[in-house]
Amino acid sequence: MMKRFVLARRPDGVPKADDFRQESGDIPRAPDGGIVVATTHISVDPGMRSRLSGDSYAAALALGETIESAGIGRVIESRNPKFAEGDLVSGALGWTTHLAHPGKGLLKLDPAFYSGAVPPTCAIGVLGVPGMTSWFGVHALSDLKPGEVFLVSSAAGPVGATAGQLAKAKGARVIGIAGSDAKCAWLIDELGFDAVINYRATPDLGVSLNAAAPEGVDVYFDNVGAEMLDQAIRVMRPHGRIVISGQVAEYNAASPRGIRHVPDFISKRLTMRGFVVLDYATQFREAQAAMAAMLRDGTLKFREQVVEGFENLPAAFIRLFSGDNFGRCLVRVG
Amino acid sequence: MMKRFVLARRPDGVPKADDFRQESGDIPRAPDGGIVVATTHISVDPGMRSRLSGDSYAAALALGETIESAGIGRVIESRNPKFAEGDLVSGALGWTTHLAHPGKGLLKLDPAFYSGAVPPTCAIGVLGVPGMTSWFGVHALSDLKPGEVFLVSSAAGPVGATAGQLAKAKGARVIGIAGSDAKCAWLIDELGFDAVINYRATPDLGVSLNAAAPEGVDVYFDNVGAEMLDQAIRVMRPHGRIVISGQVAEYNAASPRGIRHVPDFISKRLTMRGFVVLDYATQFREAQAAMAAMLRDGTLKFREQVVEGFENLPAAFIRLFSGDNFGRCLVRVG
Repeated sequence: MMKRFVLARRPDGVPKADDFRQESGDIPRAPDGGIVVATTHISVDPGMRSRLSGDSYAAALALGETIESAGIGRVIESRNPKFAEGDLVSGALGWTTHLAHPGKGLLKLDPAFYSGAVPPTCAIGVLGVPGMTSWFGVHALSDLKPGEVFLVSSAAGPVGATAGQLAKAKGARVIGIAGSDAKCAWLIDELGFDAVINYRATPDLGVSLNAAAPEGVDVYFDNVGAEMLDQAIRVMRPHGRIVISGQVAEYNAASPRGIRHVPDFISKRLTMRGFVVLDYATQFREAQAAMAAMLRDGTLKFREQVVEGFENLPAAFIRLFSGDNFGRCLVRVG
Repeated sequence: MMKRFVLARRPDGVPKADDFRQESGDIPRAPDGGIVVATTHISVDPGMRSRLSGDSYAAALALGETIESAGIGRVIESRNPKFAEGDLVSGALGWTTHLAHPGKGLLKLDPAFYSGAVPPTCAIGVLGVPGMTSWFGVHALSDLKPGEVFLVSSAAGPVGATAGQLAKAKGARVIGIAGSDAKCAWLIDELGFDAVINYRATPDLGVSLNAAAPEGVDVYFDNVGAEMLDQAIRVMRPHGRIVISGQVAEYNAASPRGIRHVPDFISKRLTMRGFVVLDYATQFREAQAAMAAMLRDGTLKFREQVVEGFENLPAAFIRLFSGDNFGRCLVRVG
């Protein structure tokens, strides 16, 4: 039987379980020239939030539609010569156990590439949209130079952790902001960050930032926005660059808080840039090859948190906004 | 007799007359190797505000010090071989009728260059810091391309009016925001702007912006900040650039208002950059030559508002924050 979650109503603030509705039906058959995929892993990430309300670069998801997300699955029926039964694929599979698909736009995972230190789930994690966001944020937007100071928020999240390691590989001094002592310890001990701030344990983030970066910050890689971005602006060095990767603190707000310290942009000659990683899609393959090499030689690490059971998708998604998740969150279809 | 204005106390909000104190003394004598300048024109501009409080890239002016500003003057005594009595000079002369100066850092105005359509006061106006701000904001920061839509605030001010004309010369469609019908008429009739918005006459700036730029804005040249910047963000096109030239709406605020719409930076791939025009000082001469040619062939126009009498300096400065000034404001020393 096919099971899927659809959008039952538009979330008001932090999403609730009732915003989603589970439906079921027959396992679909392959359309002419298409395939049927049985999903094995479905990713949940905070950027999906904006699609539920529709204030984003993509149109809002319609009520009653399957929730969209990246996933990994196995081809169980094929009427397409490019795919064989048993092939692993990744792409925008959605919150469903099975789907009929024309085949176009899905990536067939090469078992030789996705093996060993590079398991298939990397295709929707460190080598998927989150990892590409880290790569192009650091390599295409930040203009980071060796010896500079690199600050990243949500540093233990899938985008932040990878961005920090890529900055480290470029010779930067890397400071991470995360929400627990366990996350901070992981950043220092496992990923080699130079300094960390547990924002939940500090009474004054500005003071902590000054202590961690006494000479200021050259690049701030922002996954959070709002107050955290505002505080980061205060410690930016002249000619500093702010890369707006995500704004998780704003996604559930009825109206965004934004930032106060725009006059600092003049005196400190700051640049702030936002980006959509899909604009770099033609360069993904090259970036993935470089990052896979780093995974194999151990200079790049990642952390996955696997939630068991399709039914737990809404809860796993909602928990992203609590700050309690630790690593890239995937739901394994049971 | 020498007269000067000094900083009597740090302004709280909009500067008041009592924040300044007039002092007098003997006309100074030239130091060894230096000169004495009798000022003829003193400029007042909103950017000076931040120096009075000290939250800027330059240190705060000390209490009791002469208020700093650009000016034009005539050399009345010289012990420096580079200057002769009668030479016109421009530079950071301050709010004083006379000053002794070592000579270094002052620009001797070439009478052949500063003549006809390029009077000497241009050296502290359209060819001075305001005009350089326009030039480098448009040419070095905006990445403006022919056919793009260019929006500028404080459009009838010395920076905005010049920026709009430079954008027009680059083939852009130019929209100005100004604070009176007279200013708007001048922008259209004299400077050739394509559209204008009188922000004081519109009940909803966002609606007016959408009407003036139905397909959105590629470059916003911001002299105002706060609410106006926030509204401009909403009408930016994908890949739009925001040049932070000035933040006059923020200078008198105890804490800045800033902007709300940072999430738009992601979905629309926006870039926002602040700058300090003095960073481009080595390129000033080249820019001034190009702009002087535009003044002589009539493709660049400017408007000066000359206030008569040294005593009126504080009032002229304070009026900058009312929005009532129209054109570059200069005080002529009586």
